[in-house]
Amino acid sequence: MSKKLIGACVFGQSGGPTSVINASAYGVIKTALDAPEITKVYGAAHGIVGVLNDTLYDLGEEDPAELELLLNTPSSELGSCRYKLNDEKDFERILEVFKKYDVRYFFYNGGNDSMDTCNKISAYLEKAGYECRVMGVPKTIDNDLVGTDHCPGFGSAAKFIATTAAEVYKDARVYNTGTITIMEVMGRHAGWLAGAAALAGLAGSPPDFIYLPEIPFDMDVFLHNAETVYREKGNCIVAVSEGISYADGKFVAEAEVSATDGFGHAQLGGLAALLAARVKQKTGAKVRAIEFSLLQRCGAHLASQTDIDEAFLAGKSAVEYAIAGESGKMVGFARESVNGAYKCGIALQPLTITANAEKTVPREWIDEAGTNVTQEFIDYVLPLIQGENTRKVENGLPRFARLKKVLA
Amino acid sequence: MSKKLIGACVFGQSGGPTSVINASAYGVIKTALDAPEITKVYGAAHGIVGVLNDTLYDLGEEDPAELELLLNTPSSELGSCRYKLNDEKDFERILEVFKKYDVRYFFYNGGNDSMDTCNKISAYLEKAGYECRVMGVPKTIDNDLVGTDHCPGFGSAAKFIATTAAEVYKDARVYNTGTITIMEVMGRHAGWLAGAAALAGLAGSPPDFIYLPEIPFDMDVFLHNAETVYREKGNCIVAVSEGISYADGKFVAEAEVSATDGFGHAQLGGLAALLAARVKQKTGAKVRAIEFSLLQRCGAHLASQTDIDEAFLAGKSAVEYAIAGESGKMVGFARESVNGAYKCGIALQPLTITANAEKTVPREWIDEAGTNVTQEFIDYVLPLIQGENTRKVENGLPRFARLKKVLA
Repeated sequence: MSKKLIGACVFGQSGGPTSVINASAYGVIKTALDAPEITKVYGAAHGIVGVLNDTLYDLGEEDPAELELLLNTPSSELGSCRYKLNDEKDFERILEVFKKYDVRYFFYNGGNDSMDTCNKISAYLEKAGYECRVMGVPKTIDNDLVGTDHCPGFGSAAKFIATTAAEVYKDARVYNTGTITIMEVMGRHAGWLAGAAALAGLAGSPPDFIYLPEIPFDMDVFLHNAETVYREKGNCIVAVSEGISYADGKFVAEAEVSATDGFGHAQLGGLAALLAARVKQKTGAKVRAIEFSLLQRCGAHLASQTDIDEAFLAGKSAVEYAIAGESGKMVGFARESVNGAYKCGIALQPLTITANAEKTVPREWIDEAGTNVTQEFIDYVLPLIQGENTRKVENGLPRFARLKKVLA
Repeated sequence: MSKKLIGACVFGQSGGPTSVINASAYGVIKTALDAPEITKVYGAAHGIVGVLNDTLYDLGEEDPAELELLLNTPSSELGSCRYKLNDEKDFERILEVFKKYDVRYFFYNGGNDSMDTCNKISAYLEKAGYECRVMGVPKTIDNDLVGTDHCPGFGSAAKFIATTAAEVYKDARVYNTGTITIMEVMGRHAGWLAGAAALAGLAGSPPDFIYLPEIPFDMDVFLHNAETVYREKGNCIVAVSEGISYADGKFVAEAEVSATDGFGHAQLGGLAALLAARVKQKTGAKVRAIEFSLLQRCGAHLASQTDIDEAFLAGKSAVEYAIAGESGKMVGFARESVNGAYKCGIALQPLTITANAEKTVPREWIDEAGTNVTQEFIDYVLPLIQGENTRKVENGLPRFARLKKVLA
């Protein structure tokens, strides 16, 4: 049993937002506000940048009902950043601000880089002899963090992608004249999101092919596949990860641009548009390129309730474990099975676990041809997209949290 | 009181699909199946093409529970077409097929062109002395049909656009570094859909500018506006209709392509990408282009319950009025107010009313600068996006109707 540590806490959000990152925020904030050990709950404006600038919000000033709406408010409500701590001065400044507010708990919500930030702060404070418990709360729609069965944020993005892919499938085959449809999904290095399109098959709307970044992309094979299915079935629907690359490691989008005229087409159109143009050239078919874009990471109206609950749990657990004496850890998820039913457990991990590592889709969860995922993949994702959220609606529109953001 | 007409009915879907066109289908099918005057209910595969090809489904063979799921199944479940009746032989063939199945009722669900098809068939059958009651059921996300206060399909698309615009707004201002975000919305000639983005303001997330096709587009003004707001507020979010055109009538997307290198960039990227590239060039800001694409017309998971109910009502009314003796009419909506509350009434219109006419956004519903809509516009759209639908979900995914489609 660790000794009781009394003091304020700072919470920050970092990296690209998700549909449920604010549910983790609420998990941290509510648990911290309720904890007798925590004297004040501060939110850092734009993550660690808010600490450096001493722009902290006193979250005790917020209306509890508004805070609860964070559960269904997409994006990072306190603001995010992509700032990399390098300078010794940054760490000195963090210590200075922490001392000023008697901060004894620091919770940071983000991806790979944020866990690294967390780790560096933890190490610095320890070296400086300043007692402060530091916990990382993972998030990323990409699901590429190691040390956790899956990441908060992924389930909702997967649900959005699978649902939308099922709807697009319906739309894409409405005419008696066929179409080849290319859906572009996020995921720069890992194919978890692209693979999630396969779940549309459970709604009767399977994509014909899924191209993941784990498998080197071959344009000729891609074109041949699309044409073959189009000729056979009259339609073809393809999900493609933004991060597909050729065998030489070059991203397809970038390689194709420089191969054409270098006028910056990539900026004009995305990968889906590029592939659709190639497939049109090859087949003469009607083509449609759809980029799911930001909608897959901010479409909170379609967030998975399982993901919301787990994101909240991750935030809550971070505070509870810190109060119990843990520090320098990331709140990882462990998949448990209770009477065959999925259950999400907590498994703390060292903050260093995510460093320089990306969890990609295992080769055995991708079919032999490398153009679809296997049943194991589907079984892995399916529990994470369960549950329709009960978001608050006002005027037929989402009622997001409205925080006062009172400066400390 | 017209004389009782006993016989079969044919129902067909035409034109671009919507999130709720199948709700109208269900309105027609269920009412027809329940009507003693209607002996058989046939669904035409791919609209009028299905009649010409004699590919009719016997909808009496379907499981009623599956038919009910049409209320929440996007796209045109029976298949759509864009076939234009021209040839005298087409009409003879329609009459032949109608005689074969003793078809005395014909219901056709579509936009402008479909009402025209309906009208031509009605006139031909009358001339031929074949008694058959013909009714048009309007649909279009574009909301540009005259003769009706609004169109089934529009409310759901508007709800999708407003909700998504509110979510994107959240995402677009997450970093401490600003962004200019361009959201491209459908609507080739009318700005109803682009204007719907304004409703995101009721969720606290208003776009800064909305460019509608009703107002000639000026690239310099657009760039100046975006830059000014970006410099002032650090962020700028813009909704733009795909159909904006310059004062000379040329679509901006097409004009800009031919003005550059004619390599067919328009096919690679969309209008949003093009405008984002221009704005980046001008301001150096981080830009983001988002095309809502098919999602706005097939995103049934976010369909407005009001729209679903009204789409059903339109189909149901078509059958009821036809049985009562009406023919050659389109089922229009009339906006009624009951104790100040919105109510949707039915007002039949001649099928000819939609011919060569497009209902655009009135100038007085667009602000003076031509870069946003007024409160009147918002008041008009708001009732149409009300109500969260109660779609069936299985495995966390939409459970769409699964029809057997038994050929007659």
